[in-house]
Formats: sequence, C-alpha cells, structure tokens
Amino acid sequence: MTSVGAAFPAMWRELAPIGRHTGSGGYRRYAWTPADADCRAWFRSQAEDRGLAYETDRNGNQWAWLGDPAAGDAVVTGSHLDSVPDGGAFDGPLGVVSSFAALDELRARGARPRRPLAVVNFVDEEGARFGLACVGSRLTAGQLSPQDARALVDADGVSLAQAMEKAGQDPDAIGADPERLARVGAFVELHVEQGRALDLLDRPVGVASAIWPHGRWRFDFRGEANHAGTTRIEDRRDPMLTYATTVLAARKKARLAGALATFGKVAVEPNGVNAIASQVRGWLDSRAADEDTLAEVVAAIEQAARERGARDGVEVSVVRESFTPVVEFAHELRDTLAALLGAGAPVPVLPTGAGHDAGILSAAVPTAMLFVRNPSGVSHSPAESAAEDDCLAGVSALADVLEGLACR
Amino acid sequence: MTSVGAAFPAMWRELAPIGRHTGSGGYRRYAWTPADADCRAWFRSQAEDRGLAYETDRNGNQWAWLGDPAAGDAVVTGSHLDSVPDGGAFDGPLGVVSSFAALDELRARGARPRRPLAVVNFVDEEGARFGLACVGSRLTAGQLSPQDARALVDADGVSLAQAMEKAGQDPDAIGADPERLARVGAFVELHVEQGRALDLLDRPVGVASAIWPHGRWRFDFRGEANHAGTTRIEDRRDPMLTYATTVLAARKKARLAGALATFGKVAVEPNGVNAIASQVRGWLDSRAADEDTLAEVVAAIEQAARERGARDGVEVSVVRESFTPVVEFAHELRDTLAALLGAGAPVPVLPTGAGHDAGILSAAVPTAMLFVRNPSGVSHSPAESAAEDDCLAGVSALADVLEGLACR
Repeated sequence: MTSVGAAFPAMWRELAPIGRHTGSGGYRRYAWTPADADCRAWFRSQAEDRGLAYETDRNGNQWAWLGDPAAGDAVVTGSHLDSVPDGGAFDGPLGVVSSFAALDELRARGARPRRPLAVVNFVDEEGARFGLACVGSRLTAGQLSPQDARALVDADGVSLAQAMEKAGQDPDAIGADPERLARVGAFVELHVEQGRALDLLDRPVGVASAIWPHGRWRFDFRGEANHAGTTRIEDRRDPMLTYATTVLAARKKARLAGALATFGKVAVEPNGVNAIASQVRGWLDSRAADEDTLAEVVAAIEQAARERGARDGVEVSVVRESFTPVVEFAHELRDTLAALLGAGAPVPVLPTGAGHDAGILSAAVPTAMLFVRNPSGVSHSPAESAAEDDCLAGVSALADVLEGLACR
Repeated sequence: MTSVGAAFPAMWRELAPIGRHTGSGGYRRYAWTPADADCRAWFRSQAEDRGLAYETDRNGNQWAWLGDPAAGDAVVTGSHLDSVPDGGAFDGPLGVVSSFAALDELRARGARPRRPLAVVNFVDEEGARFGLACVGSRLTAGQLSPQDARALVDADGVSLAQAMEKAGQDPDAIGADPERLARVGAFVELHVEQGRALDLLDRPVGVASAIWPHGRWRFDFRGEANHAGTTRIEDRRDPMLTYATTVLAARKKARLAGALATFGKVAVEPNGVNAIASQVRGWLDSRAADEDTLAEVVAAIEQAARERGARDGVEVSVVRESFTPVVEFAHELRDTLAALLGAGAPVPVLPTGAGHDAGILSAAVPTAMLFVRNPSGVSHSPAESAAEDDCLAGVSALADVLEGLACR
C-alpha cells in the first residue's frame, strides 16, 4: 500500500529548478517561453508515465485523460504552471502536482471512476508576459476573442501569435471551445491560499465560496507646481497632501468594511525634489465580499479625497479603469465538496480576492476550488509557502472529492 | 528730465522673445545655448550703448563698468539671465534690466560716482542644464574647482567644457578669481520675490536678511511586497501608508515651526496596481529661518515616520543628501540699504528660501539683495509676475542704493 501523495515529493523536485531565478529566488515562468516549455514537457511526461491520454487543446491548454472524454460529464481538476515575475513555487504548480497525486491516490484506493477524469494545465494564467490574466481559460470559455488574443504584445514587442508560433502552437487555431466545455461536468481547482485565513483557523484545507468583486480606479490629484523653497504654506496647492490623505483613508475605510483597498502605484509630475508637485496620480485596487460593499468603500475613499482636495486647493478626478463582478462558485458543487470533506469538523468555506481560471470557467461549467494553508499568507512572492503535510492533506482532500464526484 | 526707468520697457521688450517656448509660455534659457548667447549679446549691446566698459571674465560672467575697475572698492549690481525649464520672465532678468535702468537713473540725477560701478550677468545661475546652480559665481568665488566644473554633463552627454568651447568661451581658463573679487566693495542683487511676503505687506520693495538654511533628505520606507487582492490588512507591511503619514507630518511640523517641508519626489517599487509596495522612497526638501529650527523640524518628521513605521511593520531610514547652512547677508550693508530706503516707512527686511549668486558671493564680499513684489507668489513658473509700477519702484530703490553707496 502506498501512502497518500507518495509521488508528490519527486514531482515537486522535478519542477523546482525550472524557471527559477537565482538572484531573486523567485520563478519566472512566463507563457510560451523556454521555462514554460520545460513545465509543459514535464506535464506531458507525467501524463504519459501514468498511461493517461495526453492532448493539447486549440488554445494550448494541456489535458491528461483517464477514461473517454467523449463520454461527457467529466470531472476535471488542475491549475496552471506559469508564474508572475519572481513568483513563488506554489501558486499554480501545487494544483497541477496535487491533481496527478490525487489520481495516483484514487488508483491506490482501488476506486473505479464512473465518469471520465482529467488533469488540466491552463496556459498563461498569470498574464505576466502579455498583460492579460487567464488567457487560456478565457479563450476556451469564449471570453476573449482570437483577434484580441493574437494582438496581445509583450514588453519586447512580441505578439502572443508570434510567441505561440515560435513555441509550436498554431495561433490561427485559437478560439472558443464549447464542445470541449460541454464534456466537462465539474471543474475543481486546488490552489495555495493567498492569505492566512486557514492558518488562523488552524486548518490545512478549505473550500472556496466566491471570488470577491474587484476593480481598479485611477485618482488624479491636480494642484500647482511651485518652488518648494520659497512658496508659503498658505499659498500652496500641493496634490501630494491630498494623495497622502487618500492613501490613509483607503486603509481606514477598507478596514471598517472588512474589505481591501490599496494604493501600490503612483506617478508624480514633475517629480523634482525642490518642486511642489503639479500632479499626483495614484491607482486604487479595491476588493470586497460583495459589490455593494465595494461600491461603498470606493465612494467613501473618493469622498475623503474630495474633502481634503477642497482644503488643499487640489482638483480630484476618479476614473474606474476596470471592474470584475463577483464570482459565486456553484453552490451545489461547493456544498457537495464541503460534505465530502467535513466528516470530522466542518471544512472552512472561504472567499478569495484573487482571480483564477476557475473563476473564468464558472460562467460555463460548475466549478469549485480547494485551498491549502499558506502560513506566510504571502502571495506572488518567493515567500509564499505550504508545509508538506498540508500539501499531502490537500492531495487527500482532492482525492476524496474526485472519488466522491466520479466514483460513486 | 527723464522719468525713472524710461528705458525699462524697451529693454524688457527686447529680452521677452528670447528663449520663450511657445507651448508652455515659459523660458528655456539654459547656459551656453543659442538662447543664452542671444541674452548675452543683448547684455553686451546694452553696455556698449551706454558707453560702459564691457568685459567677460575667465568664467564667462559678463561685466559692464562705469569708472575704472582697478580703482577698487567697486559697487556692483546685477543678477543672471538664464532660466529654469519653463521658468518665468522675471527670475534673473529683472535684476539685470533694473541694474542698467538704475545706472540711467543715476546719470539722470546727475549723480557723480566716487567709486567704480558695474553691472554683472552671472552665467549659469539656475543650473538647469548641468545640474549645479550658480556655476559662474561659484567658480569665481573658488567654491567649485575647474576640474569639477568642466566635468559637469548635460542630459545629452555634453560636458560644460564642450559647451563653453562651442560658445566661444575657453574652458581651460576657468577658475577662482580673487583679484576680481578684491576689487568689489559691495554686491547688490535685485530679484523678483519668490513668495508673497511683500504682497501681504502691501509694499513694492524689500531688503533681504538671510537665505534660509536648507537641505534634502531621502526617506526609505521598506515593507513587504504582497498581493493587493488577497493579503489581509493585518498581515500587510505596506510602506505607502508610512510614506503617506510622513507627508502629512511634514506639512504639520513645518506649519507649527514656521518652516517649509515638502515631499515632491517619490519612487515606488514594484509600483504595480495590484501589488502592495515593497519600498517607497520619498525626498524631503526642508528649509527654515535658522539651522536649529530646521534640525528640529526634520527630526520631528523623522520621528513621525518611525512611529508610524513601527505600527506598519515598515523599516524607515533617513539619509541627508545635501545641506546648505544659513547665509546671513552683511549686516552693515543691509542696515545701510534699509536706512537709504526707509525714508518714508521702514523697508521690509525679509529672508528667502532660495539660493542666489548673492549667497555664493557673500562668503567673499559684502553682499545685499533687494526684492520686488510678486503678487502671484509663484516662482520657477510662467505664472511668476511683477507689476510695471513695482519694477520701476525697484529701479528707483536700486538707484537710491547705488547713489547712497557710490556717490556720497
């Protein structure tokens, strides 16, 4: 008898050096680069080693099938293998590695699938190279047109079409794939948690309830350039003050509402040491459990900005640059997962603030997510982590879910 | 009998189009450029039209002499003709034009100078092209070595030596000029005010007391990069919050101390919309009436930064990048000017936060400054201004000073 996740450490070791930057200690696995190709070759060899039927779909997503895809109502699990710049080891790969390990576990248990099972690696989830996240799943779900996708350009001016072609994937074939999605009865994505909720609950595994609605807003603060050494305080119209007040208001309003609001990007003109700024531009990223709360938080931040702007003689304008509505994961599937995993104590059911392929697919197929504890709470950084015991608990939970959904 | 400043409007009109940028409406008169050459040609023709003895010194400063320089104990007046990028019309040129007009006024009054008189145009006062202010006066006063000066480079990689050579000035000849300074008994610079003190006092002309001590400090706020969409507020180490608190503290501490403190330049890493910053770097420009007050203000700002940093989990470090001690203008000369101008009501005696050639020369010769009212209070911008009546009051005051110093 093998123990749960016996193959896990070996798979993890094989992936570990691919695309790792020795300076930062983080990963640079960008879509359609040599590091990505190495990850994809690893996926294929894992599929073939297990006797799974390997295929690449029209958009470059990789699939490994146990059972006949044409039978339909498949239970699919997986995640992605690409990374943000200098990302951590777990965001994405933990879901793919755990998927293969969970199939091993089903076989070790002698479970007999009544439905087809598959492991998937969605290409270009992070959007680190071409600036748009979840390109592989968006294309398949018909949420991104082939023309728009092909025209995406990286920092070196290489288009996605050129990059795919160079990597041996036909860019003319990309597009919506409703037949493929019609064969999927459920998609379950396991992911390292991007926060500390499970750590605080002292639990290794949780189930996702929803992806928070989120958006970005550009705040423009316009004052008057002047000499920092001679202009009396009373005569200044300094937009840096209005910006600073808005940054602190964002933190406070978010905290009071149990939401998130962050200014992480700023641009100043003329940005000179002895010059009062003429303009400060700051970008707000805000997320909340529901759209009303999010709207209230952003409105409160905007009001604080305008009130301080009036005192400072600074014009404030706010533009919403993007907005993603709430994603509620399929309630029935979520409840099924919670029931399958809650034999001992009820499994934690958590929202997340981050986007995922599972969020994209949720519009087309019943979708669920499992989270594995990340004691650092850090994400998109080499400091993200998960203990091996927790990873194995994730594999076990995923095997329970696949068995419950496909083998009973 | 001519009225005071009869030649003023014509001189002003001749200078007005030189180096004016039609887009911004501001001036771009950078040292050793064609616009600067046009200004210098204008200076020479003004000298020659008046029968003044014209010369260029070894550092490229222009002089126009009435009387024999070799007689010594000269009374010299003047300012500069170069500008900051998109500067106003008055900063510099008002002093030079007023100097020529004041000599005209002395002649119209029939005053007979007992001491030599001169008008000077110091080259490269603003340092807009090569990054160092007051190059002409610093060289002459021996406060800048010829090697260091020659090695200054502009944004296009042209050295000061190359630029001088191209403009027909020998860069090998530059350096300290103690013989020339030894002939100067007093230097008086007239300048548009870079603030609103005279406007608030409803007076057209004032006398400088001192140049405030000033410096720049770099504040580094180091936190932890993280995902703006998933990291709980409690788990964040967001340096943008510490920076924002410090910006507001700087304003407050300066206001309480009657000082100035400005954050006008900031650099953020990684500066991404959905990333909590790992580092925010902000530059503080601070000035105060005396060095103790300045030190107290900066210490109070630093303390506020450290206190908030401790709450935010953010490391704060502070580096003083530059510091200029207080310049006290010669008290005897200042009191003489105040007496010469205070026949009706006592003349306002004002400090200034900005550096000047007069500040550089004050280490070597008795130096004074006159300020002319600037109702906008704006400086280093096309919005700086002075009414013609106030300009003529400045000419009259400067003539009174020159007559009082040189003709009695």
